[in-house]
Amino acid sequence: MTVKISHTPEVQQFFEEAAGLQNDNGSPRLKRIVQRVLQDAARLIEDLEISEDEFWYAVDYLNRLGGRGEAGLLVAGLGLEHFLDLLQDAKDARAGLAGGTPRTIEGPLYVAGAPITEAEARMDDGSEEGVATVMFLEGQVFGPQGQPLAGATVDLWHANTRGTYSFFDQSQSAYNLRRRIITDADGRYRARSIVPSGYGCDPQGPTQECLDRLGRHGQRPAHIHFFISAQGHRHLTTQINLAGDRYLWDDFAYATREGLVGEVVFRESGQGRVAELTFDFQLQQAQDSEAEQRSARPRALQQA
Amino acid sequence: MTVKISHTPEVQQFFEEAAGLQNDNGSPRLKRIVQRVLQDAARLIEDLEISEDEFWYAVDYLNRLGGRGEAGLLVAGLGLEHFLDLLQDAKDARAGLAGGTPRTIEGPLYVAGAPITEAEARMDDGSEEGVATVMFLEGQVFGPQGQPLAGATVDLWHANTRGTYSFFDQSQSAYNLRRRIITDADGRYRARSIVPSGYGCDPQGPTQECLDRLGRHGQRPAHIHFFISAQGHRHLTTQINLAGDRYLWDDFAYATREGLVGEVVFRESGQGRVAELTFDFQLQQAQDSEAEQRSARPRALQQA
Repeated sequence: MTVKISHTPEVQQFFEEAAGLQNDNGSPRLKRIVQRVLQDAARLIEDLEISEDEFWYAVDYLNRLGGRGEAGLLVAGLGLEHFLDLLQDAKDARAGLAGGTPRTIEGPLYVAGAPITEAEARMDDGSEEGVATVMFLEGQVFGPQGQPLAGATVDLWHANTRGTYSFFDQSQSAYNLRRRIITDADGRYRARSIVPSGYGCDPQGPTQECLDRLGRHGQRPAHIHFFISAQGHRHLTTQINLAGDRYLWDDFAYATREGLVGEVVFRESGQGRVAELTFDFQLQQAQDSEAEQRSARPRALQQA
Repeated sequence: MTVKISHTPEVQQFFEEAAGLQNDNGSPRLKRIVQRVLQDAARLIEDLEISEDEFWYAVDYLNRLGGRGEAGLLVAGLGLEHFLDLLQDAKDARAGLAGGTPRTIEGPLYVAGAPITEAEARMDDGSEEGVATVMFLEGQVFGPQGQPLAGATVDLWHANTRGTYSFFDQSQSAYNLRRRIITDADGRYRARSIVPSGYGCDPQGPTQECLDRLGRHGQRPAHIHFFISAQGHRHLTTQINLAGDRYLWDDFAYATREGLVGEVVFRESGQGRVAELTFDFQLQQAQDSEAEQRSARPRALQQA
């Protein structure tokens, strides 16, 4: 029979002490959260009869996870980041906030400070010419009534043909495939880039180790990340996931959503076969100035 | 009003998928654990209305925690490692396993492979001579009926006068203050070492960052760690915590327990003022061969 002690007053009091609830310093909010984490962890250990070896495997796993900086990748792969989107959708529905382009996960590979250009940008550094397919990407940013939003910031980033991202892949040049484009008078943005390949978790990393043991792959469809922001409008974090990719609806990070599938059209041009992709975005009105901003999530910043 | 979706069939099914329960590969045990972690995490996010910023602070914290290899320190500081001891005590009581020296936490600073000597050892490398107080430590290892156990392994490790441990403190020589002593025919072990100082968390580390926000210190009393093992007997992980230390009963890792307080006696000798400490251990009978072994917790190993 399972032995349980976590419900006893002695153990509950011990967790109160450990969470700092019996002192007057520090953060009352964090104390409450840590107390709950301790209560939940203790119940999980009891209910599932977690062995000492399992507990210490988990502790060692956390060290290896953080050692590789993959905590953000794991929460995407386990669906917690998508859950946050589902929960925010439900909160929006309750608050009567509807319409516009759907949100989806940011993922852990954004880098702040990408070059800013007006209306259009070339995103790739040319290093994959001959290997990559040239991609012409364009679209408009609209407000809630369908009016084009001039001066909106389209902050976009994507992988190269090997599915890797500049900064995290140090073999790429700084800010390769990362740009901020300010929309023109018609709310339009235009980018020349290359068709990205899908992302895959590092096969040697702790996220893939976990996925392997869950019987899951660690692959994403080819996709393009976006932060869209405009004064007076609600910040949007989203992605275009490319139609035709075998992982489009089998994304290990659960980022593909209805309304976020991009149809790439290939045509022959003077530059050979090129890809064209048109994608428009629609923003909601911001309820307050905080809503105009992305989350304060700690993000990478390229060193000059 | 709080918006909740984690109880819905859609979200529960989503967590089943993310935990791999809808495929036939991998580890059924890990799938069940991950499903529970996801369910608990989602409920915690909903119940405490965890903000996006709080969530991403936690993810970044996990990266920084693992980046410094402090996950084992945090679970000690938050009392989870002590909780495992309390739970094992309760399981022992249920199973009628009683008697012997109490267990207490291992902590994250063991290093496997320390030098082995018969009956006695000098533990310190002499580098703190003139600064440290010489300590003579001795005792006997007994079996459940009080009989001395010859050939038992006393595997002990402790900090230096700065409260730091060899291997983790690279300024110390290999295996300084780490020895394995095989008891003599009377079950006796003897060590010459130095009086350790209490351990304190790295003030710049993520564990102390958490403790600060909980209004807690990160200090331990001076102490000596032990693994005691002998054929046919149950492995014992324990510590002697030194009487008179201001943190004896205010240990951030909650390792001090009744029956584990060591009384250091100081006397003048030809070598000046020296400390003497006598501490005996009593082991339980092993119920099976597995009980003779310490947990399979991943541990550091000094490189040759």
